[in-house]
Amino acid sequence: MKDVRFLDFIQEGIQQVEQRILSQSDGHYPEIKFALEHILSSGGKRVRPAIVLLVGGLLGGGHADLVTLGASVELLHTATLVHDDLIDGALLRRGNSTLNASWTPAATVLTGDYFFSRSASLGAELDDPVIVRHFADTLATIVSGEIAQLFSRNTILDRETYNKRIFEKTASLFQLAAKGAALLSQGDEEVVAYASDYGYQLGMAFQIVDDILDFTGEQAKVGKPVASDLRQGIITLPVIYYQELHPGDDSVERVLEGEAEEGQLDALIGDIQASKAVELSYQEAEGYVKRALEALANLPQNTDDQSWMALKELAEFVVFRKN
Amino acid sequence: MKDVRFLDFIQEGIQQVEQRILSQSDGHYPEIKFALEHILSSGGKRVRPAIVLLVGGLLGGGHADLVTLGASVELLHTATLVHDDLIDGALLRRGNSTLNASWTPAATVLTGDYFFSRSASLGAELDDPVIVRHFADTLATIVSGEIAQLFSRNTILDRETYNKRIFEKTASLFQLAAKGAALLSQGDEEVVAYASDYGYQLGMAFQIVDDILDFTGEQAKVGKPVASDLRQGIITLPVIYYQELHPGDDSVERVLEGEAEEGQLDALIGDIQASKAVELSYQEAEGYVKRALEALANLPQNTDDQSWMALKELAEFVVFRKN
Repeated sequence: MKDVRFLDFIQEGIQQVEQRILSQSDGHYPEIKFALEHILSSGGKRVRPAIVLLVGGLLGGGHADLVTLGASVELLHTATLVHDDLIDGALLRRGNSTLNASWTPAATVLTGDYFFSRSASLGAELDDPVIVRHFADTLATIVSGEIAQLFSRNTILDRETYNKRIFEKTASLFQLAAKGAALLSQGDEEVVAYASDYGYQLGMAFQIVDDILDFTGEQAKVGKPVASDLRQGIITLPVIYYQELHPGDDSVERVLEGEAEEGQLDALIGDIQASKAVELSYQEAEGYVKRALEALANLPQNTDDQSWMALKELAEFVVFRKN
Repeated sequence: MKDVRFLDFIQEGIQQVEQRILSQSDGHYPEIKFALEHILSSGGKRVRPAIVLLVGGLLGGGHADLVTLGASVELLHTATLVHDDLIDGALLRRGNSTLNASWTPAATVLTGDYFFSRSASLGAELDDPVIVRHFADTLATIVSGEIAQLFSRNTILDRETYNKRIFEKTASLFQLAAKGAALLSQGDEEVVAYASDYGYQLGMAFQIVDDILDFTGEQAKVGKPVASDLRQGIITLPVIYYQELHPGDDSVERVLEGEAEEGQLDALIGDIQASKAVELSYQEAEGYVKRALEALANLPQNTDDQSWMALKELAEFVVFRKN
């Protein structure tokens, strides 16, 4: 989010996070350095490290530890992306070629593993058993969610399962970023709980908007086909709303069961885009943002207003972003 | 090593470790439970948890923590096996079908990731920042070694690189098992260093013997082709000795460069088997066992002689085992 002015004042911190990530290849195989540079240069919003730096900045956490936590969280995210691309067979991400496109599956698996291991090492450096436990549990949550998604492809999801899935996939790590920063800042129990809730609500909103953007086609500009999830048999919120709005329409089931005729998938995607499903999904995301702001309102505002304001703008930005 | 009588007295502990591993699937996707049961029932010597229980037993560590560490170390080992099988395209391990044989690569990648995450959660439960740091670093060491092995396939290895590789691949985790158990037992610095050295030396011997057994064909009985490493372009100690014994013979290079004629690889394997390379490799393994026993001699023997004796017999067993 380098184009977002309200985050200008933490760009130096974000760069330190990136440097910290790059330094994880020091003394290791050159291919690892290449992989880290490739992935960092492929863009990415660094929204997770931004949350760490802002929450920590607000609550007065030590800068060096926050940079370590930010690097650890972003590397964990990166590791899951690398394995995701392998699992999806994705050759492009954000318009750039994935490791998966040019490397063997073996190299891609091991590169993801390496990022996991260095993320764990960075997390362990913080020397905080509570953060380490959250970290390990979050990793288990993310992977568990991916497994559930894999084994339930091509099946209809209900709302409750969708919410569980996007928590596992995204909100759990946003929560870890915010909660971990609060713990490092020695916030009291209540402060940690509000910070954690801010991260959770923001993460849920973020993933819903991601799922909307997959349909509205904005992401096509950066190299992904429209409705890539549905094409892979993954049901997201716009599809769930579409089904609720059209109870007699069985085209989603037909697509999932592989019984759709030619053109039917594209027609369905067009129907979803044209329906109220997108607007309703946005409303749901806005509900999460509202709750994120309520949590934020309970955090102390006096120590560092710039961070507090940026956390507020970040929450609003999540809904209005275009990629 | 359920057929090894000197370990009978820790079988209950080993079973607790296995139960602990199985319980990692509780509340998660049923496929994960299936994967854990499949892998545990496929055998395996549980040599790493045995080291944990014996070193901890000798030094008076708390049993519950030792079981947790044993489960964590074995799960980490299992995670690397799952990804290894995917990388090698192996369909059999210990004569049983691998997950890789029946699952998609995607499911196999995620199952390995899940085991990593649960291994990390178990490690974090120990609430010992020093162990957590060693744990994360060991994971990085193992993965880094696998990456180096992958990118250096089909190239000649020198002795120094081979030693580095088997440390990364095997001895690092044996070392973690022994050192972690000593740390949990609140051993003083010297005791921790000797325990750590015992694990290191034993792990080096273990991997050399593994590499020998790959050539002597004993492992063919349990479902692996003879010289599976060389067939994959991976150089091990018997090959290094063979080359030293036959400086004019370029057949190893020809095989690695893909220039060998039909039958030449099998002929080379026969030549290595018939040469003194196997005996020299065994002598090298025995050197490591000797140093493991020297380290053991420096550990206190009074508190639990049964564990001390078993650690001694375990070191000797490593050289004389047949699979």
